[in-house]
Amino acid sequence: MSTHVPAAPADAPLEEPPSSSPSPSPIEGDGLGSRPFTRFKRLLVGRPLPSDRLEHERLSKKTALAVLSSDAISSVAYATEQILLVLAVLSSAALGYVVPISAVIVGLLVLVALSYRQTVFAYPNGGGSYTVAKDNLGTMPGLVAAAALLTDYILTVAVSISGGVAAITSAYPALAAHTVLLCIASIVVLTLVNLRGVRESGAVFSVPTYVFIVLMLALIGVGFVRALGGLDAAPAVAPRVDVLSARQHGTSWPAGFALTFLLLRAFAEGCVAMTGTEAISNGVGAFKTPSSKNAATTLGWMAAILATFFLGTSWLAQHYHVMPTTTETVLSQLNRHIFGTGALYFGLQYATFAVLVLAANTAFADFPRLSSILANDGYMPRQFAARGDRLAFSNGIVALSLVAMLLVWLFHGDTSALIPLYAIGVFVCFSLSQAGMVVHWRRLRDAGWSRRAWLNGLGAVATAIVAIIQVTTKFTHGAWIVVLIIPLIILLLRAIHKHYAHFAEEVRFRGQSPLMFLHHTVVVPVNRITQATSAALVYATAISEDVRALYVETTPGDAASMRTEWDSWEIDVPLEIVPSPYRSVLRPLVRYVDGLTSSGATDLVSIVVPEIVPRRWWEHLLHNKTALFIRTAFLLRPNVIVIAVPFHVGRAHRLRDLFDYDEMLDDDRSPGAGERRRIA
Amino acid sequence: MSTHVPAAPADAPLEEPPSSSPSPSPIEGDGLGSRPFTRFKRLLVGRPLPSDRLEHERLSKKTALAVLSSDAISSVAYATEQILLVLAVLSSAALGYVVPISAVIVGLLVLVALSYRQTVFAYPNGGGSYTVAKDNLGTMPGLVAAAALLTDYILTVAVSISGGVAAITSAYPALAAHTVLLCIASIVVLTLVNLRGVRESGAVFSVPTYVFIVLMLALIGVGFVRALGGLDAAPAVAPRVDVLSARQHGTSWPAGFALTFLLLRAFAEGCVAMTGTEAISNGVGAFKTPSSKNAATTLGWMAAILATFFLGTSWLAQHYHVMPTTTETVLSQLNRHIFGTGALYFGLQYATFAVLVLAANTAFADFPRLSSILANDGYMPRQFAARGDRLAFSNGIVALSLVAMLLVWLFHGDTSALIPLYAIGVFVCFSLSQAGMVVHWRRLRDAGWSRRAWLNGLGAVATAIVAIIQVTTKFTHGAWIVVLIIPLIILLLRAIHKHYAHFAEEVRFRGQSPLMFLHHTVVVPVNRITQATSAALVYATAISEDVRALYVETTPGDAASMRTEWDSWEIDVPLEIVPSPYRSVLRPLVRYVDGLTSSGATDLVSIVVPEIVPRRWWEHLLHNKTALFIRTAFLLRPNVIVIAVPFHVGRAHRLRDLFDYDEMLDDDRSPGAGERRRIA
Repeated sequence: MSTHVPAAPADAPLEEPPSSSPSPSPIEGDGLGSRPFTRFKRLLVGRPLPSDRLEHERLSKKTALAVLSSDAISSVAYATEQILLVLAVLSSAALGYVVPISAVIVGLLVLVALSYRQTVFAYPNGGGSYTVAKDNLGTMPGLVAAAALLTDYILTVAVSISGGVAAITSAYPALAAHTVLLCIASIVVLTLVNLRGVRESGAVFSVPTYVFIVLMLALIGVGFVRALGGLDAAPAVAPRVDVLSARQHGTSWPAGFALTFLLLRAFAEGCVAMTGTEAISNGVGAFKTPSSKNAATTLGWMAAILATFFLGTSWLAQHYHVMPTTTETVLSQLNRHIFGTGALYFGLQYATFAVLVLAANTAFADFPRLSSILANDGYMPRQFAARGDRLAFSNGIVALSLVAMLLVWLFHGDTSALIPLYAIGVFVCFSLSQAGMVVHWRRLRDAGWSRRAWLNGLGAVATAIVAIIQVTTKFTHGAWIVVLIIPLIILLLRAIHKHYAHFAEEVRFRGQSPLMFLHHTVVVPVNRITQATSAALVYATAISEDVRALYVETTPGDAASMRTEWDSWEIDVPLEIVPSPYRSVLRPLVRYVDGLTSSGATDLVSIVVPEIVPRRWWEHLLHNKTALFIRTAFLLRPNVIVIAVPFHVGRAHRLRDLFDYDEMLDDDRSPGAGERRRIA
Repeated sequence: MSTHVPAAPADAPLEEPPSSSPSPSPIEGDGLGSRPFTRFKRLLVGRPLPSDRLEHERLSKKTALAVLSSDAISSVAYATEQILLVLAVLSSAALGYVVPISAVIVGLLVLVALSYRQTVFAYPNGGGSYTVAKDNLGTMPGLVAAAALLTDYILTVAVSISGGVAAITSAYPALAAHTVLLCIASIVVLTLVNLRGVRESGAVFSVPTYVFIVLMLALIGVGFVRALGGLDAAPAVAPRVDVLSARQHGTSWPAGFALTFLLLRAFAEGCVAMTGTEAISNGVGAFKTPSSKNAATTLGWMAAILATFFLGTSWLAQHYHVMPTTTETVLSQLNRHIFGTGALYFGLQYATFAVLVLAANTAFADFPRLSSILANDGYMPRQFAARGDRLAFSNGIVALSLVAMLLVWLFHGDTSALIPLYAIGVFVCFSLSQAGMVVHWRRLRDAGWSRRAWLNGLGAVATAIVAIIQVTTKFTHGAWIVVLIIPLIILLLRAIHKHYAHFAEEVRFRGQSPLMFLHHTVVVPVNRITQATSAALVYATAISEDVRALYVETTPGDAASMRTEWDSWEIDVPLEIVPSPYRSVLRPLVRYVDGLTSSGATDLVSIVVPEIVPRRWWEHLLHNKTALFIRTAFLLRPNVIVIAVPFHVGRAHRLRDLFDYDEMLDDDRSPGAGERRRIA
């Protein structure tokens, strides 16, 4: 997904550049740079950056491992716990299944990693599931992958942040009451950081990941030594009432089927450990050369670390009879038991939080990037295609942030409630991406293609089966939401694409030149003779020779005095009077203009309306929004253009100054500069 | 306040007339008559009425008594209760003060009625306090009266509706939980009825008032006969805990001062009986001729009925030892005790509700009328000056309704909580109006002027003293809110007036004619060559000969291909290219246009922007609102006009059809009809 997509010019941001940037000199008093909103935005996200600052930081293997693996590795913070939650329903003896299940998942991980290793070499610029599926399988599989990915990026943020906050509330139980607030605050900070753009970030970001890796290795090492040396007894099993899953089930199925189903569900939940595995193959383009080779090596390291941590955690949890509780994560319990409650314990909890925030941060890079690719392909609104002031895809970042916050709020920041929704999309994408690779190899047919195709095919089938297991076993636990939402997203993407395709066809230039013989009539609604009326009439006479003033007589008998006043004003613009028995100014105007256009007397009508622009916001309430109403009334009428001529109240500069007769007579600018007409 | 003020044409409503009115034929498919909102509005308030339907129904004395006295007479529903609420704090013995206090108030009523009788003859077209005070005392007293009146009209609605609903919940205690809902629903119904306009209403409206008068006379008559005949024992005093005022006080003052203060407060609260007394003098213009004489007679009848009912209720309440409770009104308790719980009881309760709703209805006539007078004088927003479709002052009606609903909601529909705010404004107006009359007589100096001036002067002084008593004794009970709000309203009215005066001065026509020598430059921002671009360019070339297309290069290097494409499109419009290192399209455009105007190369710049108008609402989200952003950016710049040329997606008729070259060549309309230019 790291394909570099330039922002479409059509959709470039309309925000203003900085008022004191080095290159273009600021325009004084232009009314753009001094708005409170603008100043607040600058404070939060910083000054705009020029486009030439958009360069890709190339990552070393060490940095890439930290940046791109945080999503995958951080899932050990909750994966083991999810297996235990399901097994706890059966009996404490069933908890022994946690290690075999984890081992199966690690086997699957190895298969997927090997499969993706081939993608890394085939797509040296980054092979995201959407790109691979669309290129090789066609539009619809591509859209399925896109919908699944969008869903999973949102869930990555929600699950990782909830998991991270759970690491903190495990250490400080008093904070548990503020879980949702802590989650929302974390997402807000992530959003601001990403809106600022985080280009200088690689090195900084690798610190928490490496701290987490070191501390986890220490935890597993110390745990093993103590366990195998028989240095301590297993801790007491958590009280039964505290087992989360106890409230979720009422098993009354035959034992054999129920057991199989529950084991499959435990497996399905544990597969959450594999989320994020695709990050390295998506980010090949960001590696230092030789990028494919470096990425493949890093992918191997990531898989090895993840496998070690996951198996280690599961084994330790089983050995120490750790049971999931509502107040403390399994990892925190292990941590507390093995490290005690000292600096190491708190260090690992903070590192867990940090690495999970980094995991969420990868979604903040991937979601906007995928959105921009989809927007450029016409499947998402154009606003997602453009880079903002700070070169980040601002709209995508904000959209992701809002939806993730909504999810966290709806699910009360409860990781266990969110996880059944997660991983489904990931496995759908794994499968589509690898199936795409099979087609890719079949098409290339280079040396050894069939071996590669077989490996990817095996991966595709295995992950497809896992996806089906995910949906069936977790359906009633929330997976139905994803099953419902992914097709809805696909329908939405297609509807948007249809609109843009339709629009592109309609707007497509068909070769006519603007060679025109137009009769252009300008109508100026007037009700009194004022400076604003005068300005509107001057503008009207500047753009056409057929100008008519229109007086709508809302009070019978008022027209006579207007006629007298108008006739004494010798400006050669005819005044037309129409009655309005219902006191509406709009309808008689519409009828008059319709009469002009339908009679064939003119080709094109412009309506010129003065628009009062007061100085203070509340003064807007004191003036009728006539210009706005007229614009709305004529918006759908062909061949009618409504023009508002602003009249600024209480400002030094305003349009009418231009139309000051005396000033104009004193004006000695070159009269040959262009068309100068005299209407009078 | 019944001065007939025609709607200013400048502020006539912009709503559309009916789609099937008899006189003007409907325009098919004009997009105005078929909107869901319009259809819903028609259903609620009916079709628009033509201005010539605006005629004043002249009222007979009998009808006028019913229509104009409902406000005054209905106050017996709560006035006695307010006195009792204060006296209950002292002791049950103190309840005996209720009759003397009521008698003092009736004395005051007679004085005010006599005083207003003179106003009736002096202002045969209706003498509202604002008009009388402004004409005779000056602007500031006029504004004080206006602010006091506006406040009191709002309180009339809130208090009367709360009182009416209390009459219903007294009869059906189960409804008490829904008090606020019932109040809001009643106000909504009143609002809709008034928006429809209620011209044929006089006769219909007199029914509830006369039913109320008859039943009240019966209640007082039967009550007196039974009481004086000793036919029944006094009912038990309501339990002390239920006395509302018990929670309001902790009297620790010296008995003498406290007693005086409480008696004055009881008097102040009881003065609420006099609210509405001014209605007849305001409405003189609505009487059949001789209107002043008829109005004076009706005023006498009203005062007599009010005095009888108020004194009667107070005497009966004292005789039967009725105590105010939170669940049942005093009048309902009397009613139940004297009539039993049969048809008569429910009849009077319903009649009380109905007459209180009518009282609220008078405010729905007076508030919008006063608002329209104030708007015409430039003290309120112009939108209040205009009559709506149905000839009612729609904006005033809606504003009154919203504020009254807010009050009812804030005070939980509790009459006793609202009443301390009430009556203050009324007495301020009484006093100002009569002081104004003194000046009026002094100016006229016709026969017997000094006697009349003395009577009005006495009234003015007496009511001024009452107003002071009101403020001091009720200050901590809510009167402070009114003391705060009336000056704020006056400040607001003056600020609005200042704005309009300023605006009128700025907009005042100063005699220049639109004789102009203008160099008019048109800038068309383009990013691709499309039908929309083409339409914008055709329009641009129709309104000026100096047209420039402007390409903002947001992605470096993109300009070259645009230049090539443009040059192959031979339309004689120059393409100018400006770079945008910050990807903004807006800022380079602003800078370009500023360069044009500041260099003196042109006098006036129009920016022509295509505006995409999609067919379905959600499709708006798929297009950048470029035209809107550009309009906003240039709103405050002098000599720059932004023109949006609509491009309709997915509609049969659209602007570009006009610009279809082939169609134009086939066009054989008279070429002599006006200016036809060829740009190519």
